[in-house]
Amino acid sequence: MKYISLKNVQISDNFWSRYIRLVRESTIPYQWAILNDNVDDTEPSHCMENFRISAGESTGSFKGAVFQDSDLAKWLEAVSYSLATDPEPELEALADEVIELIGHAQQPDGYLNTYFTISAPESRWKNLREGHELYTAGHFIEAAVAYHKATGKRRFLDIMCRFTDLACQLFLGEKPLLDGYPGHPEIELALVKLYRETGTKRYLDLARYFIDRRGEAPDCFIEEKNRDGWKQIFREFSDYDPLYAQNHMPVREQETAEGHAVRATYLYCAMADIAEETGDKSLLDACRKLWDNIVQKRMYITGGIGSSGYLERFTTDYDLPNDRCYCETCASVGLALFGFRMAKITGESRYMDGVERALYNTMLAGIALDGESFFYVNPLEVWPPSCMEHTSLSHVKPVRQKWFSVACCPPNIARTLASLGQYIYYRSDDEFLLNLYIDSRMEEDINGSRVSFLLETSFLKDGKSVLTINAEQSCECTIGLRIPEYVEGYTFTVDGASIDYIVENGYALFTKQWEGESRIEVAFDIPARFVSANPEVRADTGKVALVKGPIVFCLEQVDNGPNLASIVVDPRSSIIEEWDPDLLGGTPVLKFTGRKISGDNWGSKLYKPAEFNTMPVELTAIPYGLWGNRKPGEMTVWMKACI
Amino acid sequence: MKYISLKNVQISDNFWSRYIRLVRESTIPYQWAILNDNVDDTEPSHCMENFRISAGESTGSFKGAVFQDSDLAKWLEAVSYSLATDPEPELEALADEVIELIGHAQQPDGYLNTYFTISAPESRWKNLREGHELYTAGHFIEAAVAYHKATGKRRFLDIMCRFTDLACQLFLGEKPLLDGYPGHPEIELALVKLYRETGTKRYLDLARYFIDRRGEAPDCFIEEKNRDGWKQIFREFSDYDPLYAQNHMPVREQETAEGHAVRATYLYCAMADIAEETGDKSLLDACRKLWDNIVQKRMYITGGIGSSGYLERFTTDYDLPNDRCYCETCASVGLALFGFRMAKITGESRYMDGVERALYNTMLAGIALDGESFFYVNPLEVWPPSCMEHTSLSHVKPVRQKWFSVACCPPNIARTLASLGQYIYYRSDDEFLLNLYIDSRMEEDINGSRVSFLLETSFLKDGKSVLTINAEQSCECTIGLRIPEYVEGYTFTVDGASIDYIVENGYALFTKQWEGESRIEVAFDIPARFVSANPEVRADTGKVALVKGPIVFCLEQVDNGPNLASIVVDPRSSIIEEWDPDLLGGTPVLKFTGRKISGDNWGSKLYKPAEFNTMPVELTAIPYGLWGNRKPGEMTVWMKACI
Repeated sequence: MKYISLKNVQISDNFWSRYIRLVRESTIPYQWAILNDNVDDTEPSHCMENFRISAGESTGSFKGAVFQDSDLAKWLEAVSYSLATDPEPELEALADEVIELIGHAQQPDGYLNTYFTISAPESRWKNLREGHELYTAGHFIEAAVAYHKATGKRRFLDIMCRFTDLACQLFLGEKPLLDGYPGHPEIELALVKLYRETGTKRYLDLARYFIDRRGEAPDCFIEEKNRDGWKQIFREFSDYDPLYAQNHMPVREQETAEGHAVRATYLYCAMADIAEETGDKSLLDACRKLWDNIVQKRMYITGGIGSSGYLERFTTDYDLPNDRCYCETCASVGLALFGFRMAKITGESRYMDGVERALYNTMLAGIALDGESFFYVNPLEVWPPSCMEHTSLSHVKPVRQKWFSVACCPPNIARTLASLGQYIYYRSDDEFLLNLYIDSRMEEDINGSRVSFLLETSFLKDGKSVLTINAEQSCECTIGLRIPEYVEGYTFTVDGASIDYIVENGYALFTKQWEGESRIEVAFDIPARFVSANPEVRADTGKVALVKGPIVFCLEQVDNGPNLASIVVDPRSSIIEEWDPDLLGGTPVLKFTGRKISGDNWGSKLYKPAEFNTMPVELTAIPYGLWGNRKPGEMTVWMKACI
Repeated sequence: MKYISLKNVQISDNFWSRYIRLVRESTIPYQWAILNDNVDDTEPSHCMENFRISAGESTGSFKGAVFQDSDLAKWLEAVSYSLATDPEPELEALADEVIELIGHAQQPDGYLNTYFTISAPESRWKNLREGHELYTAGHFIEAAVAYHKATGKRRFLDIMCRFTDLACQLFLGEKPLLDGYPGHPEIELALVKLYRETGTKRYLDLARYFIDRRGEAPDCFIEEKNRDGWKQIFREFSDYDPLYAQNHMPVREQETAEGHAVRATYLYCAMADIAEETGDKSLLDACRKLWDNIVQKRMYITGGIGSSGYLERFTTDYDLPNDRCYCETCASVGLALFGFRMAKITGESRYMDGVERALYNTMLAGIALDGESFFYVNPLEVWPPSCMEHTSLSHVKPVRQKWFSVACCPPNIARTLASLGQYIYYRSDDEFLLNLYIDSRMEEDINGSRVSFLLETSFLKDGKSVLTINAEQSCECTIGLRIPEYVEGYTFTVDGASIDYIVENGYALFTKQWEGESRIEVAFDIPARFVSANPEVRADTGKVALVKGPIVFCLEQVDNGPNLASIVVDPRSSIIEEWDPDLLGGTPVLKFTGRKISGDNWGSKLYKPAEFNTMPVELTAIPYGLWGNRKPGEMTVWMKACI
């Protein structure tokens, strides 16, 4: 299976378009202003200035995090995807200028990193664990590939090939000068992209080397620390933990998702890519196990991952605390990227279930409706007074933040939304799989025949979709439509008639000679429903959450009053599905009745003989992805069930 | 009201004697071995060696924490109390030797602190926020007063008077050389003790100065940091937070308990003492407000305080998470010390309710049944796999620890248990108040007549107690017996007859002419019962805990199987009270029936349509103070209630 080129897909979906437009109209310009320190109420990024200094066009010292460059890379990647689907000459001209600056900032040997170039040239490559040189380069490589695909221009790609050639020489030369791998995986998956774009085999070899070397003895991060010239960059990581960087055992032996959740998912993406390119079965098996470990034991219902607020990391099976989690937006983006790859490689629909969970919930929660403020941390339960500085909840913010100095999440959301089109379908020579029910038009050649696919869907409201296929000339191929896990029943008709189809790996497969226009009508039964978690999840046992299709709902104080923890719900209650056109730009809402434990008659008492007076309450749930866009207050996904 | 001298009280209580014996027979000798680095499986303390070096009797460098000396002080204080009730010539001789060494370690000007003397003489008094010099001296003063009371020997008292005279000169001289107060309060309450023991008024003045100056502008901790010679001692406190050290506003204006919970309670103790000594009404009012804020909004049902695992601090009203709290053993000791003072000053029984909560539950949980391992952190809910290193639960230990390098809690438990006798009664000239129902014999003079009080109680089992008063000569006085808040009904008889009494401030007061032997028989109705928390406590709403009298019970996995979070209890269930003579050295147990959410039929699913299959389970609860003495596993105080 292959990706569809972004250029061949136009998204026209009501639900998604507003986010994609937000990225193009708000987030990309806002990020550009940020990169240039033109936003008053946020910390200066200094990112563009670092490049100018490195290019000799300005003077001064480096400022920002050691991986500050990566913000520009992510911006360029988002810009590239946006240009692929919606060309904008001015934006392209701006990007060209920036790319020239990057070229000037590049060192004669191909090295590119403004922190090390300006501040610590003697420390280049000496602290791979903390230096983020390879991580940052990875993001530039991804951007360069995206820009090449979008514009056909080679300049950026050439810059990054020069960098990568240097890295190949250092790590893979006849007498390699370096032995190691990045502390923060990212470049591995980028190298596979670069290989695919250029055909240069050594780029794949370098990716594979990083993957194969990781977790093998001797531990490169310990080795490098003992060499002359090693300098600490992050004091907070001085207590080295191999788990944190997925460095605790060879990757093929890893069966549980460990450590920093973003690092983990980026690593797994690369493992999947390399398994696909090389047919490495043991690597693919490891990917399957790691995916299953996540979605069966370590993933929040919102697709959030990273249970520990401290170090933003995975913890242990079924440990999914709702209020102190990290659930970084980037980690859910990483989970989606991993799932996209696994679905494409295996052709199994179930991977898309996880992808949808992450995209529709945690990723969307990451960005405000104005596109200019962001959640980095995505709790499933917030009681604002408890989110205090100088406590273990200090990372949880009840309102979206403007811009972090570590601005990983906002550009990550931007690039994911801008590239969403390429994940709607996968294809092989004679098979098309529809993964995501997103209104869109796609055109591809099949055996010389131009075929268009028009998907019109209202599945989030009524479960219905129509896929109109238009084949210029008669051609035989299989069209598969994904049957998501949350579908309780389904019917398919082709041109009004029931026809035979087979269901395989979660796709309904229609194989026939397509000619002229055909309509596949899909009716999914996707009622809103209460779900519960495996009772092994201590934080959720005895509770229910509300979902409809891929969307997880939550209660907010603004709709339901304070003390959401005191609400008790009967899971057999009926749920009324409504569409509120005026709320949050138009959103589905779910209404139902519950009871609330009353605090009357408690006075100043803190404890007294057990007594639960309850009163009936009318409750309103909104999509989790939209929480925090109104008056700040409590929020919860999980509600107590009466048992 | 005054304390009763420890020498006049003999405790013979089954429940408490085993702990007091443990302190005398295990903890005191074990701590002595620790102080001398004679315990193999713990970090070396180096405490005695530091004193030998400071005294010129050994050579080498200082090792340990900046407040390492305080371990010896706490040991000496516990030894003093033990000697007061149970003289041991050998132990006294050992203490005398140690006191001589302390005298030799003292500097010519009276200064005493081995860290600054050995390692940083130039930094003396320059970092009061982090230096702990005054804190450490406070513990030595407390020990010196206790030793003087126990043995009548002045040597130790004189050493600490010399230190205090130096401090008075520096802080209170005509042209004071220093302006400030301790980062960690402790010496303030010790100075009041020293004043009471010696009658030297300037010691009280110094305590009052520290109290009055605290929280006033300019902030001394900011001022000192800007002076020459300031050196950082704790990197982790570089982000200075005035709340942490109760330094955010003048103490008389403080209405909520803030910051580090141990520091807070020690400060409040001193505020109460000074209010008592000086009649300072505004200070006493502040104490009342702070106490009420704690027991009405910031205290766990176990008497634990300090909701945040990070920085061991108070957070906000009703924020009482059960699994990630700190609830330091020392903080509960501090709460008890504060409550003892408030009860004595006000004559109000309600303060003793908080004292009992802290002593019977969190303090006792702090020490293992072998007296050699300790909980510093006292969670109310533990799921061991989630207590992982490199996460925000890394401070929570599912099994008691051997000995920390910061050994605050074990000696704090020891000194509290060894001095328990002095809190059973308070007295004035002609009134005796019985606070704690602990089997004991006490003798005091009343208006020239020797009167003995023999308390025999089985109130933890059947609510019954008998107080036998024996007056050598006829004497009139009031005897008050506390009616705890958890008593549902009560009867009193005197010599078998109902006589008139009045109830005031939570004490039943019997005023008469006592002559020869009289028996007051008490029958309290104290059934085991389910209690709930104010629904404002998000962590506990919809849950129940089990208590009987002052004892809070908990479920352990060893009795009830895993996944205690899936247990649901009907608060109307009957509770069977049993005494298990073989369990944990003999303990009450509570048996009852609940239901448990079944994890069968979940397979590898993490989420699915709501379904709660429950099965009946027989449950056994043991006192919280005894948890963690068997096979490690889950523990919970709060259970889900069916609502």
